[in-house]
Amino acid sequence: MIVPRLIERKRDGGRINPAEWHELIRAYTTGDVPDYQMSALLMAIFFKGLDGEEMYALTDAMLTSGDVLDLSHIATPRLDKHSTGGVGDKVSLVIAPLIASLGVAVPMMSGRGLGHTGGTLDKLESIPGFKTDLSLDRARKQIEEIGCALIGQTGEIAPADRKLYALRDTSATVEAVPLIAASIMSKKLAEGLTGLVLDIKRGSGSFITDEKSEIALARAMIDLGARRNVPVVALFTAMDRPLGCACGNSLEVIESIDALRGNGPHDLIRVTFALGAEMLYLANKVQKPADAWPLMRNAIDSGQALAKFGEIIEAQGGDRRVIDDTSMLPIASTRGDYLAPRAGYVARVSPRIVGHGIIALGGGRRTMDDHIDPSVGFVITAKPGDYVEKGERVATIHARDDKHLAAGRAALAEAIEIDDSPLPPLDLISHRMSTRGRDKWKGPGDKAAAVADIDYEDSEIILPPPA
Amino acid sequence: MIVPRLIERKRDGGRINPAEWHELIRAYTTGDVPDYQMSALLMAIFFKGLDGEEMYALTDAMLTSGDVLDLSHIATPRLDKHSTGGVGDKVSLVIAPLIASLGVAVPMMSGRGLGHTGGTLDKLESIPGFKTDLSLDRARKQIEEIGCALIGQTGEIAPADRKLYALRDTSATVEAVPLIAASIMSKKLAEGLTGLVLDIKRGSGSFITDEKSEIALARAMIDLGARRNVPVVALFTAMDRPLGCACGNSLEVIESIDALRGNGPHDLIRVTFALGAEMLYLANKVQKPADAWPLMRNAIDSGQALAKFGEIIEAQGGDRRVIDDTSMLPIASTRGDYLAPRAGYVARVSPRIVGHGIIALGGGRRTMDDHIDPSVGFVITAKPGDYVEKGERVATIHARDDKHLAAGRAALAEAIEIDDSPLPPLDLISHRMSTRGRDKWKGPGDKAAAVADIDYEDSEIILPPPA
Repeated sequence: MIVPRLIERKRDGGRINPAEWHELIRAYTTGDVPDYQMSALLMAIFFKGLDGEEMYALTDAMLTSGDVLDLSHIATPRLDKHSTGGVGDKVSLVIAPLIASLGVAVPMMSGRGLGHTGGTLDKLESIPGFKTDLSLDRARKQIEEIGCALIGQTGEIAPADRKLYALRDTSATVEAVPLIAASIMSKKLAEGLTGLVLDIKRGSGSFITDEKSEIALARAMIDLGARRNVPVVALFTAMDRPLGCACGNSLEVIESIDALRGNGPHDLIRVTFALGAEMLYLANKVQKPADAWPLMRNAIDSGQALAKFGEIIEAQGGDRRVIDDTSMLPIASTRGDYLAPRAGYVARVSPRIVGHGIIALGGGRRTMDDHIDPSVGFVITAKPGDYVEKGERVATIHARDDKHLAAGRAALAEAIEIDDSPLPPLDLISHRMSTRGRDKWKGPGDKAAAVADIDYEDSEIILPPPA
Repeated sequence: MIVPRLIERKRDGGRINPAEWHELIRAYTTGDVPDYQMSALLMAIFFKGLDGEEMYALTDAMLTSGDVLDLSHIATPRLDKHSTGGVGDKVSLVIAPLIASLGVAVPMMSGRGLGHTGGTLDKLESIPGFKTDLSLDRARKQIEEIGCALIGQTGEIAPADRKLYALRDTSATVEAVPLIAASIMSKKLAEGLTGLVLDIKRGSGSFITDEKSEIALARAMIDLGARRNVPVVALFTAMDRPLGCACGNSLEVIESIDALRGNGPHDLIRVTFALGAEMLYLANKVQKPADAWPLMRNAIDSGQALAKFGEIIEAQGGDRRVIDDTSMLPIASTRGDYLAPRAGYVARVSPRIVGHGIIALGGGRRTMDDHIDPSVGFVITAKPGDYVEKGERVATIHARDDKHLAAGRAALAEAIEIDDSPLPPLDLISHRMSTRGRDKWKGPGDKAAAVADIDYEDSEIILPPPA
């Protein structure tokens, strides 16, 4: 293997064969292939893509570069949910205990926030004492005992992916569909799953903003799962505005506990139930996804979902009393309202600007070394389409001090647009996609979803770079 | 300057402004920007190109990363010739003493051979004692005294380019027109020239093989020179076969000495005179290039050109007696003829295969660390279009031993194609290009060359990657 010749071949539109991928990733992991060759190759992949075989070989090489969570001895179905990332997206915090409380194992490995998006690990760590850096061994035991563990990517899992991800982040090669798909799936396949549900975020706050790439990404991950006999279903959900109202680590934990108590914002509950229904469906707990909705409603009404969250918190070193007393969570010292500067319809709430506003408040990361303040953030109660009066409160800002409060207010003034007429927001949940095809998503109140009336033509298996 | 954002901008088709280029190159030279970010940027440039301003800023940043040969105190015009590289191309060895003998200073900085092409420094160093690693100070003194110095790129000149070139070589980002142009011109502009003549090699043995990129490269370098008030003229010459007959370091020195004595192969003399005429024209020694031919003829016939070569050799530590006795040069121990395997027309002599044949003989480099044997190589007397009889000698192989002789013979069997009818080779010298335009080249026997009947439309200033 002569690496410059491999790079050249990819650069000129050729393909790298499976044996070469395995050797390349092995040599990169051991340091025998330097970062500067790999980043040039990644940039060539950004422009030239990978075909299905190449993407599978890369994923497999990254997966086998480390350990996996071997749960094959558990008879219980093992399901996870993965989101492509957004603002206010606390679905993981709600769905993991909810689905685990219904007899499905949820081995969930999450990441940290970076840039404008938040990360599940950061949110969980705002719970006093909560540890996310469990060893695979301890996570395995916890899953056996209580059906769920919420952990970070350990050094044992896919070290090649960790190294590659850090390189992509610093070499402007993150936004390449096949690299995103391979990175996600190399970790998800290491969780020993029997099925996976994807939340493909759409709209301005998503990393991927064009429909062709959304479909390509979903198709790539569905395909990678199928090659490993892990069925994957993807829902396409809206990220043209934040999900729910709370945006910020501690604030999102509070909203998640509210949701598990039955008091969550409508959009958060709806997206959580839609994704949870697919998990229960892939776990063979129901005949069709729509049948799962009453089960989840019952798990919340009975308190068993919230109790499961308490069990998880306790198992991971946290103080379970937070589920009854959210005032135990970090609370910002300064609070201020953001009032509508004029009357009209909320035309837009930009997730990207809100996300950068959280960074300005000290609650997000510009680089992986940044320390974050879990207490700060926004609660934005106005949603696109709402009519507001001038001077009406549309959001609350939680900040360290008055200076930061002003920065938060400036961010909201930019993020929230009020206009004379409402702009139609994206459908909250627009499509469902599986190996059988992609179709308009239909809720449990609609007639059962048809399958495959949209074919795959739009997402060739030679994956394009984002437009 | 946030480097990943710069890379992203270039990747997405944007431009990097002059201040950013200067900061980036400065930080890369000091090691503050790591190789892995630079190689990703280089690959993005491969795909997205650079516009004229960007290329100029990059060149200027590389140029000012080191010292320059300040010759501004010399009233003499200072001219150099640069070739894009080929096989058998010993023009530099002939043209430098020839033009210097006519009262023009020639501060010539050359490179080493790599891959299938030879390098002037390697050829010169086959002369016993010849040193090419002069300091800028010593080179300056030598130019003042005898009008010419033949040196390598010192550590003092354009260190950013040295570092970038090594990175490009290992990251498959060599073949990008704006990077090639910036790299060449950052060094040439450091020679303190008043004018520069380019030899753009065309055909299968050239690094750049499509016409659009040839024109783009020439235009880029002409443009970069113009921005620094250094007039540049480019001639497009044939590299679909070796230039001259000798291919190999010591053998090429012998052929160069023959040429300076008036006995060179016709094609070598013609290309040397065409390029030399442009140097003398840019040096204001003649009214038009055609007027320079008799001057050069006279410099050779009078012996002053060969005597100048002797002066240069002596000044740089070599034994000047080689100009009278070429048997002092390294001579291979084993010699063998290559005979035509059939009768017919020589249809092709592949420079690339001949070049790789020299490597197989031990006379070239696969990597920069390879040691080379100066004595080995080929003398190929048959030219495309010649009719040869079966068993006629078409080449001589100079090798270390019989095993290498066989390898050389195998290379020639592949390189030299004999067919029933001749294939038309490329015009030896096809075009001339300056800031005024590109036109068919016309020799001194033709009527004076018209200018600008081909316009620049084919080579947009946003330079394309090679096709």
